[in-house]
Amino acid sequence: MKAAVWYGKKDVQIENFPDTHPGEGFVKARVYWCGICGTDLHEYEDGPIMISMEPHPLTGIKPPVILGHEFSGEVVECGKGVEHLKPGDRIVTNTLYTCGECYWCKRAQYPICEKLGGIGLASHGAFAEYIHVKASQCYLVPPEVENDVAALVEPLAAAVHAIRQGLVLEGDRVAIIGAGPIGLMAIQAARAAGAGQVFALEVAKSRRKKAESYGTIALNPPESGYERVLLDHTNGVGPDVVIECVGAPETGPMAVNLVRRGGRAVIMGVFSQPSTINFNDIVFTEKEIVGSLCYVDEYEKVLLLLADGRLSGEGLITGRIVLDDLIEKGFQELIRNKDKHLKILVRPN
Amino acid sequence: MKAAVWYGKKDVQIENFPDTHPGEGFVKARVYWCGICGTDLHEYEDGPIMISMEPHPLTGIKPPVILGHEFSGEVVECGKGVEHLKPGDRIVTNTLYTCGECYWCKRAQYPICEKLGGIGLASHGAFAEYIHVKASQCYLVPPEVENDVAALVEPLAAAVHAIRQGLVLEGDRVAIIGAGPIGLMAIQAARAAGAGQVFALEVAKSRRKKAESYGTIALNPPESGYERVLLDHTNGVGPDVVIECVGAPETGPMAVNLVRRGGRAVIMGVFSQPSTINFNDIVFTEKEIVGSLCYVDEYEKVLLLLADGRLSGEGLITGRIVLDDLIEKGFQELIRNKDKHLKILVRPN
Repeated sequence: MKAAVWYGKKDVQIENFPDTHPGEGFVKARVYWCGICGTDLHEYEDGPIMISMEPHPLTGIKPPVILGHEFSGEVVECGKGVEHLKPGDRIVTNTLYTCGECYWCKRAQYPICEKLGGIGLASHGAFAEYIHVKASQCYLVPPEVENDVAALVEPLAAAVHAIRQGLVLEGDRVAIIGAGPIGLMAIQAARAAGAGQVFALEVAKSRRKKAESYGTIALNPPESGYERVLLDHTNGVGPDVVIECVGAPETGPMAVNLVRRGGRAVIMGVFSQPSTINFNDIVFTEKEIVGSLCYVDEYEKVLLLLADGRLSGEGLITGRIVLDDLIEKGFQELIRNKDKHLKILVRPN
Repeated sequence: MKAAVWYGKKDVQIENFPDTHPGEGFVKARVYWCGICGTDLHEYEDGPIMISMEPHPLTGIKPPVILGHEFSGEVVECGKGVEHLKPGDRIVTNTLYTCGECYWCKRAQYPICEKLGGIGLASHGAFAEYIHVKASQCYLVPPEVENDVAALVEPLAAAVHAIRQGLVLEGDRVAIIGAGPIGLMAIQAARAAGAGQVFALEVAKSRRKKAESYGTIALNPPESGYERVLLDHTNGVGPDVVIECVGAPETGPMAVNLVRRGGRAVIMGVFSQPSTINFNDIVFTEKEIVGSLCYVDEYEKVLLLLADGRLSGEGLITGRIVLDDLIEKGFQELIRNKDKHLKILVRPN
């Protein structure tokens, strides 16, 4: 089958890759769509980052490895022992491999499992014609959700998880730092959680427009006085929850600075540089900071919310390409025209 | 009456200060003991820090101001309208002035009131023969608690608040960074909350000994490998909660580093310098950081726990002096011999 195979930094080959029958407890699915994630780009540009060059302890797989983890597909073959899925079922898959035995798995804190791995990094992913996935990790896509939108379920699960980490309650004011794909999904998720008012802080004008189309008040952080504007809109109090979705050295401290006293800043960006903070800004304000990584069990929740329209793919898909064009019209296009795009989806043929 | 009056940095005078009858809703108390807090030392050495040179918005008081807020006393006179206290009652006092009207007061998050003030900073304190305090802020000291130990209720309330901010649950492993007065009180408070195991990280040998006498495993952070020792004692997991009680630029990040993945780091030190952290250390671990400042309503809880022995003054009082000696045998002694002392109590005569 055709697949995009990661061999090393700047070395991803679209090539023929051997395929087999699914093993016990696994299903083989034909890939409908697979979205390009920042993680894929990072592995292409600067990898290996999350890819392990040694066989992964939970999968035994090491590079060369097929990339791609934001996918939807259709079951074409079931391995031994698979009872709740059948050929023709439309599925999405929780992409995490967790050991089930460590301190964190026992507490259902799966994203911080000691041996955490992911599809498309620690096992072969969905930039391919077919993918093999564990049946118990699959969720049926309801009829209201199209195949392309179903490919957004994985990042939407991460956005919903972040809002849950933020303990967002009905009526809360929520500020989102960064209105890229994850930030825009976090805006939707905050609304789905009942947020009373949502603010988006974003430097790119096109993304601010999109954020405004979701009903937020969008502000441009480099413009002086944006903190004041945020306070003016919140009776001088500030947002109850801030969700940081950027990962720049200044946006972590910005999240801590912007959230109201006693409020909660959720950090979900991936950082390549350290930041400077004064811990007094936490002590004298009793602010909370918490990290958010991947998801726990949010797939079913996302599917419910997509089915009834509280989450949607509206405006998030800015490109559709075929696998042969992954490097040039996918990776390179996203590097060249970052702000122009949100999610580019890839289909095998 | 005799009082220790702050006029400015390095300018605290023991002098005669006018006294009057208590106003409506206030009681006048004879001071038994008043402990020296780090805050008093900072105001003496480097003030004004928390003292406002303008009249405080809630008290109307500005310097010269009598210092001292960790006190116990006996009611000698009640102002108009005071019904639940009478002369002879032994009391301690919640020292916070809060507006009762701001967003935070309405949520009972009193330590982060917009106009927060404190006795001995924003009003005249207890390094004096008498103090006037609002009756509704006073708590009766139960007979099991001696007058000297009652003077520890204020810092004990801050320690209990920190453990509550940490959401410490029965059986949790808790590490305390710094075994000074507040750190040792936090050790007791963690035990009172049911902590399964408590660790103390402290550089001064004498304080490690004291921490060990409270049943902790005491470690010396400069010694290489202390992180490993902590992991060895916790099945490789790390402590569920870390309480930072130092305020050095390296101890904030240390708290974040030491707490287990998904655990909670409480920061209660006061910092004079910024720190460097990598937000990835929060994102990829889903750790939580939270500040802790003063207390909300923990006075009654502390008095209950002191009465039945789950909290105690055991070993915490390392000096007893009279008010005339406050500068030389109090402030200067604490500056010269910091590690030798924990709490020095001052009585008016």
